[in-house]
Amino acid sequence: MSIITLYDIASTHPGQAWSPSTAKARYALNYKGIAHKTVFLEYSEIEPLCKKLGAKPTSQTSPQYTFPVIHDPATGTVVSDSIEIARYLDATYPNTPRLIPEGTAALHYAFTAAFEATLPPFMHYTLPASLPFLNPASQDYFRQTREELFGGRRLEDVTPIGNEHTVMWEKVKDAFGQVDGWIRKNGAESKYFMGDTICYADVTVAGFLRWGRKVLGKDRWEEIMTWHEGRWANLMKEMEKYDVIF
Amino acid sequence: MSIITLYDIASTHPGQAWSPSTAKARYALNYKGIAHKTVFLEYSEIEPLCKKLGAKPTSQTSPQYTFPVIHDPATGTVVSDSIEIARYLDATYPNTPRLIPEGTAALHYAFTAAFEATLPPFMHYTLPASLPFLNPASQDYFRQTREELFGGRRLEDVTPIGNEHTVMWEKVKDAFGQVDGWIRKNGAESKYFMGDTICYADVTVAGFLRWGRKVLGKDRWEEIMTWHEGRWANLMKEMEKYDVIF
Repeated sequence: MSIITLYDIASTHPGQAWSPSTAKARYALNYKGIAHKTVFLEYSEIEPLCKKLGAKPTSQTSPQYTFPVIHDPATGTVVSDSIEIARYLDATYPNTPRLIPEGTAALHYAFTAAFEATLPPFMHYTLPASLPFLNPASQDYFRQTREELFGGRRLEDVTPIGNEHTVMWEKVKDAFGQVDGWIRKNGAESKYFMGDTICYADVTVAGFLRWGRKVLGKDRWEEIMTWHEGRWANLMKEMEKYDVIF
Repeated sequence: MSIITLYDIASTHPGQAWSPSTAKARYALNYKGIAHKTVFLEYSEIEPLCKKLGAKPTSQTSPQYTFPVIHDPATGTVVSDSIEIARYLDATYPNTPRLIPEGTAALHYAFTAAFEATLPPFMHYTLPASLPFLNPASQDYFRQTREELFGGRRLEDVTPIGNEHTVMWEKVKDAFGQVDGWIRKNGAESKYFMGDTICYADVTVAGFLRWGRKVLGKDRWEEIMTWHEGRWANLMKEMEKYDVIF
């Protein structure tokens, strides 16, 4: 059977995945129960593959081509960018649980912008800690593009220590607290962004939390799991069954 | 009959309103067809009134108390903050058209954060241009709080001219272009944020556009009305019937 291919970034832990962006696409596929297989490639292979497949660049600025990309042989379609992949799967496989309910695509895009704006403190920790997960072939590219995000500082110098860590880590907590505050507006009992059922916003948050679980180390991860009355612990527990790499 | 009071900010144009924040609450009331009357007050009167009514501060930082505030004598409820007012009206008057559809409150809050992040370029123009709409009693307060947003620069020096204007005005257009891009994700034909029916996100955008119409001057306003295939012109035309001051 010809099934969907999900392109992910190779790591020093064969068969494992660390990228938050590709995690969102995997969650989406598994949540919908859509058969697929994963192909892991190095960063240097992304652009040539995208050009070969005809995958769109996800940004006009560097890095132009990114994973996740999916290729669906059933329709001959290639889709890049995790939210576009969720939209494609919702539209193409309408009998699977929908991730972006009718009429909420614009709000989901606005959510993505708002959520990404909360991420810089978190990324002071997760980006440097991701380096050991990359094969040597990808480390230079990752270092170069990610150090640009921090004004050229070496990734090794980005994660704060001492008092600066205390302040920055509180900002990480506040960032997730902002997201928690949004979810609470649905009602005190709201488990997920849109109530009792997972939507793409939850997948997005889970993708980034999963990154933290992969790279942050046990103590910091366990601390996050206590935040906001266990909201993130509950979310990650729920998402566990969709975190299977095929 | 005892009807809702909407508290708005007084201006040099009696009976008119310029504030984007209070416009959102007025749009919400009129869209729902809920009877109300407006009381215009100066900035210095906001905090004493809020404390007297028991209205919550909308921010822990300056300015702590803001309009809009509504007082609903039917329920004895006082609500501050336009999105909270929309939520209150949706919940209390369920037979009126809903502005924040079931399950979308969290996404609407995320939208608000994302939309507000696009506003600084626009506010380089609208904040200084609002000063002449304020009575002398309110100008000092407005100047002080708004100049803080620009690092203490005098409001008269905030609006760029010459080449800097060209660059900044393009940023204003790009900001609305980002919002237009979100709406397009609902489908090429999507008129509003959630499709064919107005929701609170549209009310928010319209409230800020209305501010532009009030203070920017004819040429800039007419230019905005040509942007993004007339999306904002269509929105403002639709909202016109809800822009009545009682």
